[in-house]
Amino acid sequence: MRMYDIIMKKRNGLALTKEEINFMVEGYTKGEIPDYQMSALMMAIYFKGMTEEETFALTMAMAYSGDIIDLSKIEGLKADKHSTGGVGDKTSLVLGPMVAACKVPIAKMAGRGLGHTGGTIDKLESFLGLSTSFTNQEFIDYVNQIGIAIIGQTADLAPADRKLYALRDVTATVDQLSLIASSIMSKKLAAGADVIVLDVKTGSGAFMKREDDAVALAREMVKIGTSAGKETVAIISDMNQPLGYAVGNALEVKEAIDTLNGEGSKELLELCLTLGSYMVAYTKHASSVEEAREMLLKTIEDKSALKKLAELVKMQGGDERAVYDTTMLPKASIIMEIKAEADGFIEKIETEEIGIVSAILGGGRETKESKIDLSVGVVMHKKISDAVKEGESIATMYGNDLEKLQQAKEKFLSAITFSKTPVPKGRFIKWIITSSGTTKY
Amino acid sequence: MRMYDIIMKKRNGLALTKEEINFMVEGYTKGEIPDYQMSALMMAIYFKGMTEEETFALTMAMAYSGDIIDLSKIEGLKADKHSTGGVGDKTSLVLGPMVAACKVPIAKMAGRGLGHTGGTIDKLESFLGLSTSFTNQEFIDYVNQIGIAIIGQTADLAPADRKLYALRDVTATVDQLSLIASSIMSKKLAAGADVIVLDVKTGSGAFMKREDDAVALAREMVKIGTSAGKETVAIISDMNQPLGYAVGNALEVKEAIDTLNGEGSKELLELCLTLGSYMVAYTKHASSVEEAREMLLKTIEDKSALKKLAELVKMQGGDERAVYDTTMLPKASIIMEIKAEADGFIEKIETEEIGIVSAILGGGRETKESKIDLSVGVVMHKKISDAVKEGESIATMYGNDLEKLQQAKEKFLSAITFSKTPVPKGRFIKWIITSSGTTKY
Repeated sequence: MRMYDIIMKKRNGLALTKEEINFMVEGYTKGEIPDYQMSALMMAIYFKGMTEEETFALTMAMAYSGDIIDLSKIEGLKADKHSTGGVGDKTSLVLGPMVAACKVPIAKMAGRGLGHTGGTIDKLESFLGLSTSFTNQEFIDYVNQIGIAIIGQTADLAPADRKLYALRDVTATVDQLSLIASSIMSKKLAAGADVIVLDVKTGSGAFMKREDDAVALAREMVKIGTSAGKETVAIISDMNQPLGYAVGNALEVKEAIDTLNGEGSKELLELCLTLGSYMVAYTKHASSVEEAREMLLKTIEDKSALKKLAELVKMQGGDERAVYDTTMLPKASIIMEIKAEADGFIEKIETEEIGIVSAILGGGRETKESKIDLSVGVVMHKKISDAVKEGESIATMYGNDLEKLQQAKEKFLSAITFSKTPVPKGRFIKWIITSSGTTKY
Repeated sequence: MRMYDIIMKKRNGLALTKEEINFMVEGYTKGEIPDYQMSALMMAIYFKGMTEEETFALTMAMAYSGDIIDLSKIEGLKADKHSTGGVGDKTSLVLGPMVAACKVPIAKMAGRGLGHTGGTIDKLESFLGLSTSFTNQEFIDYVNQIGIAIIGQTADLAPADRKLYALRDVTATVDQLSLIASSIMSKKLAAGADVIVLDVKTGSGAFMKREDDAVALAREMVKIGTSAGKETVAIISDMNQPLGYAVGNALEVKEAIDTLNGEGSKELLELCLTLGSYMVAYTKHASSVEEAREMLLKTIEDKSALKKLAELVKMQGGDERAVYDTTMLPKASIIMEIKAEADGFIEKIETEEIGIVSAILGGGRETKESKIDLSVGVVMHKKISDAVKEGESIATMYGNDLEKLQQAKEKFLSAITFSKTPVPKGRFIKWIITSSGTTKY
């Protein structure tokens, strides 16, 4: 088998066999196939696409290119959630404790933020002393003890995907649906859960700006997960504005805690209830999605989810008192209100720009090595369709540097479009895609 | 400027600017742009193509990436011929002396054979002692003394093209018309002639199997040459059977000499008269293409072209007596007739396979380093539409190894299709394309 023939075949629009895909993934991972052939193939795939069978074969080949996490020492069916990334996305911090409080074991490997999106690991570090570096054995022990643990990625998960993604990133071959789907799913499959719930965002702050692209990506991922024998569901939700109100690490932790106290944003809670109900039902902890939703609501009412978060923080070495007193979280030294210059309604938010506002304030990483300031960010008070009055605060900015605050304020205001006339509210949950069908909301 | 943005732009179907093309060619030649980005761009160009302006900019950038041969020390307008390659193509050995005998200076850089096609330099080495390695000064002195010299490529002509072609060759991005046209023309422009005559072949033994591809390629090359201020013409001729009768180095030299003696193949002579008449007319050595053709015919009748070949061989250190006594050329030890097994007509010849027959006998290179046997090859006696009788010889094979001869014979016979009924002859010269128009014959 020769890589040249594989490139030629794909270039001519033919489907590759499973053997050809395995040959290419193995050869590339071992360094036997050079980057320049792989990038030519990726560009040919950009133009000619892949069939369902090819996409599945690629996903499996990448999933099995490194370690596969063995979660068998944790009893029962394990569920995992993956988000395609957005601005103000603190879902894991709310959803994890809620689902764990329903007795679903949550063994989560999470990442750090890069560019305009934040990362769960960074956010968790807002709790003084909390660590996310554990051995696999400790990780599993923690889940067995309290039902949840969140760690940084330590194992060598899907190294083929990591190498391939880095190449696609510099050769303009990232945005191809089958390649995106196989990249995400290879890591999820290697992470070992039985149930995979996909939190797919669409809109100005999402990777998938267009709703039909998000639907197509979600369908491909659900097909892959199902073919791999995992119960898989995708929820497509709106990312035309930040999720909830806070954007910035400690600020988002506070909003997550507020939500677990029943006082957070309606959308964030709705998203957690929707994602969580599939995690609870698919792992057989409820007989239906509806029943699971009731169980999840109860974890808010009886504060059991909040308590679960405190247990998690304590178990991982953090100061859990901050869960009950959020004034103990990292605090910025300068607080600045952003006021409306005229009466009107919020019409549009360039959401990616709001992520950049937080990064400008010091809350984002430019490169993997950058240090971040956990205390900074922005809390919106008004969102799309909300009425604003001249002089009213539309957002509060938290920073530690006046110059950066000035720059961030300008960025923030240029990201918001106002309207003189009322603006309708869009739906938040847009689509639910399971192996048995697609439902639009 | 970033290579990433250039790839993205082309991927999205937009035309690159001259500045972007220069940036990419310079950066790639210097090694600042990695292979993996260039191969992704090449694949994007394969799918999205290039405009006339882009193709011209790429050609010029590659032409000027290394040395440009200065032929100004040779008086008058200089003409150069380029063949897209075929089987049995001994055109340069006949055309060069004919045109030089009409006083057109011929300063030719030629190549060696690779794969199923032969090379002029190999063929010339059939003359004992002949060298093709000279300094640029010697090269120019020889042309000034006798009007012709043929040397191997010494100068660093279009290194960007060489590097890019090697990359395209292993990434399935060779067969794209604009890339082929710019590759050929960059080398021709760097070689310094004022008049460029393109010998474009089409058919089963050619790079361009389909006639419409050959026409499109020829049009692109003529446009590029004209834009660069060179008089350029392309002649498209048939390569559905070998050119002339002989395939193999010394055998082709003999056929070239026969042709200069007025005893060679009609098609080979016709091709030389057609190509040559443009070279003579465009360099102002004749007032019309028709007059040039009469002058060229005269060089055969008065043997001045044959004499010119002898002068060339002598000047370059070879034994010129072989020009007048072809039995002095390298000779194979075994001669084998291939006989027809039934009465019929020759219908079709897989011409590339005939080239491979010669290579099997030892006359072709597998890699650049391979040594070749100049004496071996095949001489056809029958060509398409010719009638054959059972037991009649259709070809003679020359070799030095019985096993290889057996293998070559089988290959040869499987490459020929016979018909019971008469087969029409196709046209040999198919199209002539000049800057002012395209004529079909």
